Amino acid sequence: MSPDETVTAFMQAVQAKDLDAAMALAAADIEYDNVPMETAYGAEATRTMLESFVGMSEEIDWVVHHQVAAGDIVMNERTDRFRSGERWLEIPVAGVWRVEDGLITLWRDYFDLEGLMKQMSGEG
Amino acid sequence: MSPDETVTAFMQAVQAKDLDAAMALAAADIEYDNVPMETAYGAEATRTMLESFVGMSEEIDWVVHHQVAAGDIVMNERTDRFRSGERWLEIPVAGVWRVEDGLITLWRDYFDLEGLMKQMSGEG
Repeated sequence: MSPDETVTAFMQAVQAKDLDAAMALAAADIEYDNVPMETAYGAEATRTMLESFVGMSEEIDWVVHHQVAAGDIVMNERTDRFRSGERWLEIPVAGVWRVEDGLITLWRDYFDLEGLMKQMSGEG
Repeated sequence: MSPDETVTAFMQAVQAKDLDAAMALAAADIEYDNVPMETAYGAEATRTMLESFVGMSEEIDWVVHHQVAAGDIVMNERTDRFRSGERWLEIPVAGVWRVEDGLITLWRDYFDLEGLMKQMSGEG
């Protein structure tokens, strides 16, 4: 798989809540950086963070608006959607990924934390 | 110029505070969207927004970490740095650009507004 395809396959696995399949595409030393929040270092910490938002979501639907790749870097613009009950959270995100030897070594998402918090509290 | 080169030239012109040169690379109907803030529609509104942050900065230095392009889309990961007196604001940003017929029609920046506000108030 190309870096572009690896990122797409990873995102599909997360949306299917198949974290085994997702983490099979992540390097042991993956860095998962939610820029306005904490950074998870390593596969175990990344999986723990993924489990937390997969666990709180009945449905996950990430809409990719654009995805461009060059060398080992992939960038995408997305709306990450998470359903809990009747309610969808919709987070506008821009992501930067690095894929080396077929495995994701960096996943960094840029988004507005306050906008997310407002949605979570029902104000957004 | 390619879309990639157009975006680079635009950013260089802004850093040089040469808004005539910058706006020469923008379409009349450019959309300039600071995701957690307002969106400027059109060249005049975009120039007004640029003037506000160019005016408050003695020096502008945008560090591009990655920039990738495909078709008319360019994405980049940056640290946008603005100096006022002795103090630098440093904003982690991911941008999405569209360039059509040599002119920028979309410039959308993803960043964390609260992180920026904390820096502006001296807490960050």
